[in-house]
Amino acid sequence: MSEQFRAVPVIHVGRGSPLGESERSDLAAVEEPLEVRLHGTPFAVIMRTPGNDRELAAGFLLSEGVIRTAADVGAVEHCRHPDHPDVHNVVDVYLIGEAASSLDEHLRERRNVLANSSCGLCGRVTIESLRTRAAPLPIAWTMTIDAAAAMPDRLRERQRVFEGTGGIHAAGLFTPDGVCVRAAEDVGRHNAVDKVIGSMLLDERLPLDRFGLAVSGRASYEIVQKAWLGGIHLVCAVSAPSSLAVDLADEAGITLLGFARGGGFNVYTHAGRLPGV
Amino acid sequence: MSEQFRAVPVIHVGRGSPLGESERSDLAAVEEPLEVRLHGTPFAVIMRTPGNDRELAAGFLLSEGVIRTAADVGAVEHCRHPDHPDVHNVVDVYLIGEAASSLDEHLRERRNVLANSSCGLCGRVTIESLRTRAAPLPIAWTMTIDAAAAMPDRLRERQRVFEGTGGIHAAGLFTPDGVCVRAAEDVGRHNAVDKVIGSMLLDERLPLDRFGLAVSGRASYEIVQKAWLGGIHLVCAVSAPSSLAVDLADEAGITLLGFARGGGFNVYTHAGRLPGV
Repeated sequence: MSEQFRAVPVIHVGRGSPLGESERSDLAAVEEPLEVRLHGTPFAVIMRTPGNDRELAAGFLLSEGVIRTAADVGAVEHCRHPDHPDVHNVVDVYLIGEAASSLDEHLRERRNVLANSSCGLCGRVTIESLRTRAAPLPIAWTMTIDAAAAMPDRLRERQRVFEGTGGIHAAGLFTPDGVCVRAAEDVGRHNAVDKVIGSMLLDERLPLDRFGLAVSGRASYEIVQKAWLGGIHLVCAVSAPSSLAVDLADEAGITLLGFARGGGFNVYTHAGRLPGV
Repeated sequence: MSEQFRAVPVIHVGRGSPLGESERSDLAAVEEPLEVRLHGTPFAVIMRTPGNDRELAAGFLLSEGVIRTAADVGAVEHCRHPDHPDVHNVVDVYLIGEAASSLDEHLRERRNVLANSSCGLCGRVTIESLRTRAAPLPIAWTMTIDAAAAMPDRLRERQRVFEGTGGIHAAGLFTPDGVCVRAAEDVGRHNAVDKVIGSMLLDERLPLDRFGLAVSGRASYEIVQKAWLGGIHLVCAVSAPSSLAVDLADEAGITLLGFARGGGFNVYTHAGRLPGV
């Protein structure tokens, strides 16, 4: 079985200790695509942490209305790609009885299928296919450690809804000197990022190559992907990054910060944009 | 514009004060479906907090590869349903130039389109369409306040990955006396729930009408939906519920707890399963 977490190199900055002093490795939760097939035909791709993949596929198909009970499931099999025998990121589900009779209908409605050709292979292939849509970003500007560390607080000041509910995510776009020029809130982390980048797109201000992005939650693959496609050079998350977020930021040339809280943060990739780290 | 938060009735329990004493209303972040159309044809439905819908649609289409710059966008329009003129949950995007020439291809790949007929209308219709798949749950068992309050700690004890990474969600299935019988971890909250329910499905143990579900993050519409389809009577979230999660739990007959931390929790719906509240 694939691992559920993986060591990633990290530089700890601030939080009451001398700056840039502590370089070591932390554990990141592994994020990899899982392709769910119905009778051999791709139905959906889910970004997930490996482990209990058969159970994940069954639970996912239950909430999608494809199955209702175990009696609808003939088999749930891990299958291997002929060219990638070490990769266990495809689960094939065979339906029986009434569920099987709706197979064609479900396949017509198939969803969440990633647009690229990487479906269900592995994070490495997922990243490579994204490279056909975006080029690695150069180091074109720098940000002080203080300005980077202050982004989460600046973002929180812009959150109108959070104080009332505690249940909402935020994303904000920052200049290299740490000024928040645009922010959005949403129950979905991805939506908040889409709102911020989309608002700049509609203002004809893409690529966002003079901006950093701060997000209130974790940094997943999708957050870094959205930043890359928007041309953003730096992503700062209040919480942890996934393994695939780190890999993608590395490939994209994006500076990825995580655990940005209490005046400190971790640097996972491309520390060159933060002089002194 | 629709509101971004809404008052929901809540009972505060525990956290150093007498039990069940404090009934008032809290604010919940609003969650509603947004249907994104391309040239009038449904392309995707996103669960989001209302506000900046045009920007959300633009950012979403950027990361989906449908558009690349403002030059690809002819118009982004909020449109109204003829039968629901007060609902602003549909955005129609018109492409121009090269982007428009790929329109048919994008529509073939359309994704995230909800299976039911509620797309883009409003949360109320979304819930009603779900009722065709599941019946409201009766109050068949009770749980003590202490057992309910202890669920988050019991769940955390089962989290193997979290300690190392801090970046992973968990879901666990609990008996009415507060024993965690199954747990799963994932970078995705929904995946953790799917893994737990799916594992019971494969063991032919659905419906899960003798169990409560605890989740490490927020309670969104989808979490409550998954619980309902699994037949689960109680959902306990460490963080906040969305407005639509509260509405759906109310309709489903599910007891919804939120902000379950520090020995206390909030009760949003169906407190009858918790004697003394």
